[in-house]
Parts: sequence; structure tokens; C-alpha cells
Amino acid sequence: MSQDADQLAKACADSMWANDQASSGLGMQIDKVEQGFAQLSMSIRKDMLNGQEIGHGGFIFTLADSAFAFACNTYNQFTVAQHCSVSFLAPVYLNDRLTATAVERNRTTRSGIYDVTVVNQKGDTVAEFRGHSRTVKGQHIPDL
Amino acid sequence: MSQDADQLAKACADSMWANDQASSGLGMQIDKVEQGFAQLSMSIRKDMLNGQEIGHGGFIFTLADSAFAFACNTYNQFTVAQHCSVSFLAPVYLNDRLTATAVERNRTTRSGIYDVTVVNQKGDTVAEFRGHSRTVKGQHIPDL
Amino acid sequence: MSQDADQLAKACADSMWANDQASSGLGMQIDKVEQGFAQLSMSIRKDMLNGQEIGHGGFIFTLADSAFAFACNTYNQFTVAQHCSVSFLAPVYLNDRLTATAVERNRTTRSGIYDVTVVNQKGDTVAEFRGHSRTVKGQHIPDL
Amino acid sequence: MSQDADQLAKACADSMWANDQASSGLGMQIDKVEQGFAQLSMSIRKDMLNGQEIGHGGFIFTLADSAFAFACNTYNQFTVAQHCSVSFLAPVYLNDRLTATAVERNRTTRSGIYDVTVVNQKGDTVAEFRGHSRTVKGQHIPDL
Repeated sequence: MSQDADQLAKACADSMWANDQASSGLGMQIDKVEQGFAQLSMSIRKDMLNGQEIGHGGFIFTLADSAFAFACNTYNQFTVAQHCSVSFLAPVYLNDRLTATAVERNRTTRSGIYDVTVVNQKGDTVAEFRGHSRTVKGQHIPDL
Repeated sequence: MSQDADQLAKACADSMWANDQASSGLGMQIDKVEQGFAQLSMSIRKDMLNGQEIGHGGFIFTLADSAFAFACNTYNQFTVAQHCSVSFLAPVYLNDRLTATAVERNRTTRSGIYDVTVVNQKGDTVAEFRGHSRTVKGQHIPDL
Repeated sequence: MSQDADQLAKACADSMWANDQASSGLGMQIDKVEQGFAQLSMSIRKDMLNGQEIGHGGFIFTLADSAFAFACNTYNQFTVAQHCSVSFLAPVYLNDRLTATAVERNRTTRSGIYDVTVVNQKGDTVAEFRGHSRTVKGQHIPDL
Repeated sequence: MSQDADQLAKACADSMWANDQASSGLGMQIDKVEQGFAQLSMSIRKDMLNGQEIGHGGFIFTLADSAFAFACNTYNQFTVAQHCSVSFLAPVYLNDRLTATAVERNRTTRSGIYDVTVVNQKGDTVAEFRGHSRTVKGQHIPDL
């Protein structure tokens, strides 16, 4: 991907992040964004634990879903999640540091498929996520 | 389902709920639990909004996932989510009241499939979720 | 559903079936079609067995996919499968008679979700399928 | 992967293929098998066309499912498909030559996730498939 493409990607991410109370409220941080790619990380807090003292799968999904959202919105076109699936492969615990890496698998004019792998601080995969996106009207920033 | 089965279901849910900081922290409430069935509701708060001022799909998933968890854990056997898929059908907004209804579609000795429909306060469907569960060792309460 | 709606559904199915070499070539038959609903059946032949002498999952999927296609095409608007998922719950054997029942779960202007359950001749569920459809240009028969 | 591992993979594939009437009956051929990897190809025949004169999605799924099966059975342990999802990205036509490439994404003692991409003779992606496998009792060949 060209330098311009990655600059556009970062500008889109900055614009999204500025108002994304959900992702920042959960303590996520953006580690890296490039065209069709995003990496976000988040720590498992006490308020993310379920009845078995393990992290609620919903928060693992939410981290993956945010990584997916940032990756598919790197073309300066509003893009939304249409369908997502997730496989939970290992439990996560209090204070685990999760990293979600979203990679573009396929992209046509309107639709995209993104694969997101979530690992813990030891590098063990805790979830595999696949997201299907669809572009809608609107763009994140004025045309450069 | 017999009265005993539903009493067991409720006892399992009470036991899970007592320590589920994730679900209660998000403001969920359990509306109804029966054997193989659960209904939970939650309001969309300001800290659940993403960059487009609509509810982050992750919280819709989390509500559905909790309903799924309560429904598949009604047999007094620890049961975990293995694979889930979700289709987002309509956006949700600040203060929307969402209700997730989880119904058992299939259950064998070890595995189960649960369908969860999430509607808003107007009764419009905002998401369709399907969860695949698997039982693990352990039970919620001592045998009655 | 009104009588007219079901007549339209049947007319669409007749039009599709007339040229559907795939479904008829596999020995499928249409048991019932109504608006948003279809039931098809098929027997497991010798050429559908895989290396373990059990029916290849691909043919179970294909039966479910055909039921889905007939159900989502009952509105006289060309409609295609966009995304499908299937869970294989029990093996199928030579001469098993499978019945796939497709029920509409959700439908908007352009998109639909259909659940298909596949049972064998004993009524045991062998697969659960969920299909996501999308309408495209064109219709099956001239407007009545 | 070591040479031994790939030899074992090929021996497993040979054993499966010998009795797989379904895959051979559809005209599939195995292009390549390695540990955790398989590539199969197949041409779209007249009896695979549906009512719109395009290839029935069920056959695209079946090719992907076979590639998945050969890839996840390369460890000389019987392994079955548990859950699969497929996205249909472009139509296929009579005489199209499809190639399905199955790559292992994740594997634990009992479970695996495999991604299968199906392309046509022009290299255009026509489907993306993800399969979840589970090992069962039995092995393909005696221990070497």
C-alpha cells in the first residue's frame, strides 16, 4: 500500500477515534492502522469478568469488532459491520492484555471480509473473528 | 418443561448472576429464565456509542451473548460459548432499550445451539445471533 | 400469508425448478412452498458418500441451500445467497431420506435471514443451517 | 513442516481419497496436500447449474468442504467438520475451473479452524469458507 493510502487510513482512524466513547471507554488503544489493516489492544478489567471469574466473551468480541471497524474504514468511506462470527478458543483472565489484529481478506466495491485474530500477552490465540462489512453513504474526512 | 426444571434453571441463573460483574456492570437485567430459555434487557448508554453516535455492535453482541449464556446454563452444568455469529440489522441509539431473547434450537449431551433475537423498545429487530455451546466440567449449585 | 402470496410463491418455485439441473440432478423434490417457506427432500445416494462411508457434508449443505433458495425467492424477485453457515450434528448414511425445512426469520427490503433444519427419516436433526440472502435485479415471472 | 509430516499427510489423503465417491464423482482432483494444507480443483459441469444458469452454491461449498476435510485430516486422526460458513462473492459458470485452497489457521488437541479460498480460472475469488473441525476416534493408516 502506498504512503498516501496509509496516511488516509490514519486520518480516517483519527476521525473515528475522536468520538468513539465505546472503544476508549473500554480502555482500548490503537496500536497500528494501515489501509485494510488495524491492530488494537485492551486489558481485561474487573468489570469485564463474568460469573466464572473469566473475561466475558462479549468484550473479546467488542475488541475484535473495533479492530475490524478501524480496518474496514480506512478508505474514507463509511463502512459498517453486517455479519460477524467469532470462535472462543481459550479463556481470558483479569489483567490479561489482549491484542486484536484485523487483516483484509477480500474487498469489492461495497463489501469486505476481514479476519481478526485476538491473542493474549503470551501470544496465545484466544479468539478468531471474521467480519463482513458493507459501505454506506458518507465519508470520514473531506477529500484530500 | 416441568416446574422443577424451571426452578433449577432459575437457581443456576441466580448463582451465575451473583458474580457476573460484566453483565450487571453494563446495566443488564434478567427478565425471564426457563430451561433452555433466557430473556435479558439493557439500555444503550453514552459510553456504548461509537464514532457515528450509534451503539457499538460489541454491546449488542454482549447482551445477546449473555442471554445465550443464561439459556444454555439452565441444566446445572457449566456450559461455555464456543462459536457465535451475529447479523446487525438496524442501528441502535442512545437510551434505546434492547431486549434479547434466547431460545434453544438444538441440544445434545455436550453441545447446543441457541438463537437469540435482539429487539429495541419499538419491537424492531436490531440483531439476530446464533450461539454454539459446549458443556465443561462443573455445576452451578449442589444437586437438589 | 394470503392465498395470492402462496400462489405467487408456487409460481416462482415452478419457474426456478424448470431449469434447476443441480437440485433435480441430486434427486431433490419440493415437498411444499409458501411465502418465505420451503421444504425439500432428498435421499443419500452411493455417489454422495465420502471416504468414511457417510454422506459428504457438502450434499447436506446443498439440500439446505436449495430449500433456502426456494424460500427466499417466493416474492418474485431474484434473490441470491450471500452468506451461509451450517452445523453438522449427526452423520447421514446410504439411503437416508433427508428433509430440509426453510423458515424465514427476518426480511427487509433487500436482505433476509432463513433458518433451515435438516432431519433424517427418523426425525433426528442432522444439520442446522442459516442463510443470508440479498435481492438482485430481475423477477421470476411477469407480474400477475 | 517436516518431510515426514508431509508424507504422513499424503498417506492420509490417499487413504481418504480411495473411498471418497462424493469428491471423485463430482470430478474433483487433489492438487496438493501437506500437513494442515490441501488444494483441490473441480470444473463446473452442466449438472451443477441452477435455475439461473449459474453454478449452484452447494457445489462450491462442497469443493471447499472437501479441501477443508483433506487439510484437517493430515495428522492421521479422524477429523470431522463441525461447523462451516461460506460467503459467495461472485457467480460461477459452466466450465469454470475452480480451485479451493485450505489453510490451517488454528489447531488445538481436538479442534481446528481452516480457511478455504475458492478462485476461478482467472484467479478471481468466488467464495471464502471457514471450517471448524473436531477430531474423533480412529486413524487413517497404521502408525508408521
